[in-house]
Amino acid sequence: MVMATAARPTAGAKTGRDGMNRTDANELAFVRLCEAEPVLTDVVPAIEALPGMTPNTVLTSGPPMPWNGYVGGQRDALIGGALFEGLASDREDAVRKFENGGIVVDGCHDYGAVGSLAGIYTASMPVFVVENRAHGNTGFCNMYEGTDPRRLNYGVYDEGVKERLLFVQDVIAPVLAQAVRAAGGIALKPIMRRALHMGDELHSRNTAASLLFTRELFPHFLGLDSAMRDAVEGTVAALTEDHYFFLRLSMAAAKCTADGAAGIEGSSVVSAMAFNCSNFAIRVGGLGDRWFLGPHASIDARLFEGHTEDEITWMGGESVIAETVGLGGFAQAAAFPLQQYQGGSAAAMVERNLQLYAITVGENSDYRIPYLGYRGTPTGIDIHRVVDTGVLPVMDIGIAGRDGGQIGAGIVRAPIECFEAAVAAYEERYGVP
Amino acid sequence: MVMATAARPTAGAKTGRDGMNRTDANELAFVRLCEAEPVLTDVVPAIEALPGMTPNTVLTSGPPMPWNGYVGGQRDALIGGALFEGLASDREDAVRKFENGGIVVDGCHDYGAVGSLAGIYTASMPVFVVENRAHGNTGFCNMYEGTDPRRLNYGVYDEGVKERLLFVQDVIAPVLAQAVRAAGGIALKPIMRRALHMGDELHSRNTAASLLFTRELFPHFLGLDSAMRDAVEGTVAALTEDHYFFLRLSMAAAKCTADGAAGIEGSSVVSAMAFNCSNFAIRVGGLGDRWFLGPHASIDARLFEGHTEDEITWMGGESVIAETVGLGGFAQAAAFPLQQYQGGSAAAMVERNLQLYAITVGENSDYRIPYLGYRGTPTGIDIHRVVDTGVLPVMDIGIAGRDGGQIGAGIVRAPIECFEAAVAAYEERYGVP
Repeated sequence: MVMATAARPTAGAKTGRDGMNRTDANELAFVRLCEAEPVLTDVVPAIEALPGMTPNTVLTSGPPMPWNGYVGGQRDALIGGALFEGLASDREDAVRKFENGGIVVDGCHDYGAVGSLAGIYTASMPVFVVENRAHGNTGFCNMYEGTDPRRLNYGVYDEGVKERLLFVQDVIAPVLAQAVRAAGGIALKPIMRRALHMGDELHSRNTAASLLFTRELFPHFLGLDSAMRDAVEGTVAALTEDHYFFLRLSMAAAKCTADGAAGIEGSSVVSAMAFNCSNFAIRVGGLGDRWFLGPHASIDARLFEGHTEDEITWMGGESVIAETVGLGGFAQAAAFPLQQYQGGSAAAMVERNLQLYAITVGENSDYRIPYLGYRGTPTGIDIHRVVDTGVLPVMDIGIAGRDGGQIGAGIVRAPIECFEAAVAAYEERYGVP
Repeated sequence: MVMATAARPTAGAKTGRDGMNRTDANELAFVRLCEAEPVLTDVVPAIEALPGMTPNTVLTSGPPMPWNGYVGGQRDALIGGALFEGLASDREDAVRKFENGGIVVDGCHDYGAVGSLAGIYTASMPVFVVENRAHGNTGFCNMYEGTDPRRLNYGVYDEGVKERLLFVQDVIAPVLAQAVRAAGGIALKPIMRRALHMGDELHSRNTAASLLFTRELFPHFLGLDSAMRDAVEGTVAALTEDHYFFLRLSMAAAKCTADGAAGIEGSSVVSAMAFNCSNFAIRVGGLGDRWFLGPHASIDARLFEGHTEDEITWMGGESVIAETVGLGGFAQAAAFPLQQYQGGSAAAMVERNLQLYAITVGENSDYRIPYLGYRGTPTGIDIHRVVDTGVLPVMDIGIAGRDGGQIGAGIVRAPIECFEAAVAAYEERYGVP
């Protein structure tokens, strides 16, 4: 087990409003964030893995809302999920069933899962099962649909999307499941740690991690039945075709890491951040499962050729679990190649990254940034520090278009309102210092 | 074919001492350095690939010398090569044969090859065959011996070294040869270009390139006879066990790139740099195969645990062909993780990298540095600019110990004397401007 002793909270953490209690709680949360040991143990359908999942549930990103709260692309994605799962015969039938409760909508986070963008989970979809061996809890994430910008998780459902979802389900998932079982599990932390030294920040860039993961599996691919050779080749191609395959593993690893550090009495460390189509929201380690809502913030975006800013829309997103554990926007200075994808400059990336040490409990003992002399990434967002300094968490995100599909990528800052609401609730619960 | 038009020489290149003639020649050399298209086409024994190679020749790094010029580790490495190849029954027999010409010593560069450190080639050793498809010439390099610091190319020969050399020859080479042939060749430039975006500078760090190369071969490994499975697993392990496997491919690619830009009448662009145990030396594109000698320079080193500076010794080295084409020390700002391996800071790496634009003809159109806003690497070292500015080429090298083996890594600067001698010869040949 990796010890976080080299990166204990700095003295500044002891100046919190209510003295040692909060400081100790936050230090414990920070140490748990550092010491997490995520291991991919299996790939199985969501219905077999997610506690509480049912055949007629569709999960989506962000604080859960009643069906009529979901609009635009996130609503379309939910309908697409229902159709893909065979829960409805057509859109109208799906809408009727969502309205009358024949199909249940719920939030991914409450099932131990996290959703990319709209984040649709249905019962049959394969999910990565990632155990946090340091703490004994488990996180889940479903799989990347591939490079086509038209994807279910970006609010699109048509024959092409269905075909790619079935390829994931029928080809990639069985190959990965067999290889992962043959390997006796794949430790993700060594992969993630190395990937940060190879240009990834494990949110919008997972290029090296995807390759390192493929390399770990390759000996086990060789051992699979030769009748599976085409499936293995297709899987290897999917694993490495672009920068995103490993994101879902990074997300599942981050989810079980964050959950392992949640539920600590007195902790003011953020345990989840998420979007739905209406709000950005956070959860706090010492404040249970309550979501603290805020508005969407403005995006500093780089759009794909042919798209314009007025197309940008919100359909949810929980990949910002990466930032919650010190990755993504909190590790930007490890991933200068992201300039090409999401815009900006190396200098701006470094400056943003350095700012975030002001709002975090400590420097990660495992996730380190070569450019910063291997300084640990800023880890453990303290709601009080955010409110005190006004420095807002930075997140690297994919951007959806109003007609569905991915239209770009960019950087967003969490809104202050969530943190103010959380601080108020913290003071209500634990007293004003 | 990749065009270098976006990165033509800057106006500064036109201020050379002898006007347009040299400028045009250097521009042509620069464009050829940029446009090279190295493709790995085969893996075969040196005797089958290297023009002029004979069964009783042993090649070594640097300007060739008579046998008695080789001392210390480079001499030991030559003797080791003779023993490995079965050209002598013991050390004394080998020395006798080297003395009486029964075994021939020669320099790698004159056979289209480049040597890592001592750079020993014998007839049976497998070599990578890399064609420069843009220019029609070929470069060669033999293979990495593995992570053990005791290696033939670091002046050591014993049973362990022999065993590892035979593993390369009997296991890795046949697997790679079959996979490369099945692939119809592997284009190296796309791998190298991407690796620079993933923390490699393709001399002392080849981590990403080794993975990307392995990934290209995966589908062809899957197609090999199942009886080869252990060999394939061993090969995949060797390809990815540390940061060096791809270096030999980078070297062969750089060799055919540099050779493609050599032999241009009037060019004052460096076409090779190399060490032997006595000297550092360079060749110049417009001055034929003559080596211009200088002393060894001082090293800024980071030594492995338990080693001290007084152990540092020179046994040759031609991996600095990487720097000759705009990689390695000329791409340091792409490889901040190297701090951990060879010491220094990110700031120093950036500063050194930026200095080198003063002595090069242009900015590489293909090899680009994310941190510098994807600026092309400084490419095409002009001997006049080196002498005029006093800025010396920076090279990332492995460091040998006086008792053999690798004892560290570091940064070295080429000595000014080589460049002064080359400028004098250039003026003698082409006239003083």
